Amino acid sequence: MSRYKLTLEYDGRPFVGWQRQKKGDSVQAALERAVLALSGEAVTVFGAGRTDAGVHATGQVAHFDMSKSLRWDTVRDGLNYHLKPQPIAVLLVEPVDDTFHARFSAKGRVYQYLILARRAPAALDRAHVWHVPVVLDDKAMHRAAQGLVGQHDFTSFRAGDCQAKSPVRTLDRLAVERTDDLITITACARSFLRSQVRVIVGSIKLVGEGHWAVDDVARALERRDRSAAGPTAPADGLYLRSVRYVSD
Amino acid sequence: MSRYKLTLEYDGRPFVGWQRQKKGDSVQAALERAVLALSGEAVTVFGAGRTDAGVHATGQVAHFDMSKSLRWDTVRDGLNYHLKPQPIAVLLVEPVDDTFHARFSAKGRVYQYLILARRAPAALDRAHVWHVPVVLDDKAMHRAAQGLVGQHDFTSFRAGDCQAKSPVRTLDRLAVERTDDLITITACARSFLRSQVRVIVGSIKLVGEGHWAVDDVARALERRDRSAAGPTAPADGLYLRSVRYVSD
Repeated sequence: MSRYKLTLEYDGRPFVGWQRQKKGDSVQAALERAVLALSGEAVTVFGAGRTDAGVHATGQVAHFDMSKSLRWDTVRDGLNYHLKPQPIAVLLVEPVDDTFHARFSAKGRVYQYLILARRAPAALDRAHVWHVPVVLDDKAMHRAAQGLVGQHDFTSFRAGDCQAKSPVRTLDRLAVERTDDLITITACARSFLRSQVRVIVGSIKLVGEGHWAVDDVARALERRDRSAAGPTAPADGLYLRSVRYVSD
Repeated sequence: MSRYKLTLEYDGRPFVGWQRQKKGDSVQAALERAVLALSGEAVTVFGAGRTDAGVHATGQVAHFDMSKSLRWDTVRDGLNYHLKPQPIAVLLVEPVDDTFHARFSAKGRVYQYLILARRAPAALDRAHVWHVPVVLDDKAMHRAAQGLVGQHDFTSFRAGDCQAKSPVRTLDRLAVERTDDLITITACARSFLRSQVRVIVGSIKLVGEGHWAVDDVARALERRDRSAAGPTAPADGLYLRSVRYVSD
């Protein structure tokens, strides 16, 4: 058996998410079909981040085992060939030993969320940003975000159907930066709860609009109640950027 | 009569180009329909850059005259409303006096061309870059590009059907920069010949691949013959970024 580590880019729009589901096509199932077409082997592809429907990735990591031993570049090119015309690209294939697990070996994940904050709609990259038609105070958003950094019970900031046993996570970094009318929110943690980044974004956007005070975000955290936080931001603007396996 | 200056973003894919044509929809015609829907007036919208089919813009400038005098933000929001769902956004509307002409008053134009230089195809922003499946030597491309900066007869670097009277243009800047696998080529000039940026990109890409030596680009320029330059790069990667009206 050979284990292959994949680094992936995808456009989340046509998929029900990373994970295979009864209805609709998933990134995982598309990759498994491509492996089957390439090697004739029915495999399970394990992903580092189970991105939700519509969420994009530029650095998702996955792995699978194959009894055939193919060169890494043959696997990359073969999977890309069979993935066409679906918007999934295999950027990198690396042979790894069988102690590597895309999900369980991961030491850190970086997500980014893009908000286009301007009156005019987005003509380019339409479904790849969240269009908010007002100017946002990015500095206030950044200050509010700092109240979430560190180890906390994130019950207020996870989806109702989140299946994680513990709501405690450690947010290593949460930064809000602005370039012209594009606001980028970067979130780094070992792991995230379901919809955590999107509920955080939906909440700090309320600060950016002036509907919430800076401290209201930390106050929502203390409440440990999903209804205390803001709405879930749409999937369109969210990207899984990278997964880290080496310890700092 | 009131004259309005528009700053526009658009995705070039669905259009035959900026200019109205007998067959197919153009950005110009789409804007004229939106003005008609907003004001009931049949106007001509003049653009600063006559972008070709498939070419995008993030800072195209245009103007039109209207007998109604509407507030600038009413014009912006009204045009954006009537432009939906076409991928054209009016970013800014400014009232200008009738000496302003989007095309003839322009003092400078900036185009950018994006090349995704990697083996894997583009899963995100598929039609918005030129995918070149090999690593390119961006430093050699930049050196080659410097041979085109300045005032030259660009006969070698214009489309066969270019209707400009003179093939002489002054390229103020031509820079090749790389960030990871994305190569950005920035071209600044008072005005450009038809397909000039795309023929330049198609030629310096040959340098990046090692098929041409750095000096071959300047040599192609000296030949004053379209067949001496490289192929025309696809429209997908080209963006009109900005138009300048104030003199330096």
